[in-house]
Amino acid sequence: VILVDGYPADHVPVLDRGFAYGDGVFRTMRAQAGRIAHWPLHYRKLQSDCERLQIACPGEALLRDDLDRVLAREPRCIVRITVTRGRGERGYAGFDAQLPVRVVATAALPAQRPFCEDQGVRVRWCRLALSHQPALAGVKHLNRLENVLARREWNETTIAEGLLCDAQGNAIGGTMSNLFILEGTRLVTPVLDRCGVAGVQRERLLGMGKHGGLDTTIEPVARDRLLAADQLYLVNSVIGLWWVSQLGERNWKRSATTAALQTLWNAADD
Amino acid sequence: VILVDGYPADHVPVLDRGFAYGDGVFRTMRAQAGRIAHWPLHYRKLQSDCERLQIACPGEALLRDDLDRVLAREPRCIVRITVTRGRGERGYAGFDAQLPVRVVATAALPAQRPFCEDQGVRVRWCRLALSHQPALAGVKHLNRLENVLARREWNETTIAEGLLCDAQGNAIGGTMSNLFILEGTRLVTPVLDRCGVAGVQRERLLGMGKHGGLDTTIEPVARDRLLAADQLYLVNSVIGLWWVSQLGERNWKRSATTAALQTLWNAADD
Repeated sequence: VILVDGYPADHVPVLDRGFAYGDGVFRTMRAQAGRIAHWPLHYRKLQSDCERLQIACPGEALLRDDLDRVLAREPRCIVRITVTRGRGERGYAGFDAQLPVRVVATAALPAQRPFCEDQGVRVRWCRLALSHQPALAGVKHLNRLENVLARREWNETTIAEGLLCDAQGNAIGGTMSNLFILEGTRLVTPVLDRCGVAGVQRERLLGMGKHGGLDTTIEPVARDRLLAADQLYLVNSVIGLWWVSQLGERNWKRSATTAALQTLWNAADD
Repeated sequence: VILVDGYPADHVPVLDRGFAYGDGVFRTMRAQAGRIAHWPLHYRKLQSDCERLQIACPGEALLRDDLDRVLAREPRCIVRITVTRGRGERGYAGFDAQLPVRVVATAALPAQRPFCEDQGVRVRWCRLALSHQPALAGVKHLNRLENVLARREWNETTIAEGLLCDAQGNAIGGTMSNLFILEGTRLVTPVLDRCGVAGVQRERLLGMGKHGGLDTTIEPVARDRLLAADQLYLVNSVIGLWWVSQLGERNWKRSATTAALQTLWNAADD
């Protein structure tokens, strides 16, 4: 099911600036029983990302109406909201762009994956180094070629995710997920003011860690710290919370802290 | 006039990866009398950019056929060719993407601008610093948010272009053009192996400078060298060759070398 500006359609204009320049932002969310999990966090993030690009964010009522309509037909699915600067004449500025365009599209929820709560996931390093662009860092915008190229570095289905560093060797996150490392009772996630996407599940796990008695911090994380960590986590709105069982030569077992976090996570997962 | 995969249409699928992730490349070209100026250079660049993103480039005969059809209806115009990885399921890798999609679209040629050959153009510095991404540097891909944000830094019609540096203070180019500086008989253009777009008019002016007896080089250009240069040039396929008359406090007059380059340029401008 796809709605473009509230109308059923499966296409957008060639002249949409989302297509021309990747001039827009998006959200990927999970819906169950006709309800978007963590909608208030998603909408707040959408507003904040639109503001970063100077795009007028569609009103919440408008989007909720779109969502109600698609979820009535497909109550359990993935929903992607895309907001672009709209249709515009040729040229980068886009001062002449018409109203922002919103696209609400559903996709099938992936089948439960073989790894997950008990087994953890295998991950690898990506060779591609993320670039530093403070003007775009943290924003889930439509310029995702770095993620595309990084994700194309492997095709083994046994590898669930690739990890990315910047050119200085700071770990930033996965190609599609945010990264946390557990060091004793410290739960650390990389600072994302120069690259990466600051997703809503990152925000959630930070809150959950604190609530669970962990010392949560956002700081630079050198690549080598991952191998020394007690546990690694990856989060996003579709996969939820993954713990890493293998990265290169290093193996981990699920720790008691991980089991506790999983319990907290599952209790609040809608 | 717009053709999508050879068929008249003004839209692309929402699921096209060009719209979803900016996963594609493009060319902007000038057509006069039903003919694309410098087509062989444009096609070679399209091939090379597709290869960088691991996208299968549409065959030349296919594109020429599209171009013949749109130019029969609009012989004097700007033509943009966009090639995306095609329609794909959700997810960055795109291994499942169907055939690449090609879009050929015309736009009106801008009216002759008041500045130009005699007066030169006024330009300014942009605050945004370009990021370093060797994997994408030089490629005219669809991830153009840096250009969009930089171009939005000014709205005065008297300013023809904005100049961009990287975070280390190396001048890279304009928001939509390639940059050259003239120092005596040296014609220098910035190295673009970490950021920027290596356009076909840059290649042309390098050849033309050499042909005209200048010592042409590609090297890092520190920001301050621009103010000390004898002349600055900006090139792209729509504007052609501009010389800069003003940057901040610095003013230039048109030099004899510039007049000579303009003569060479105009003699070979189709």
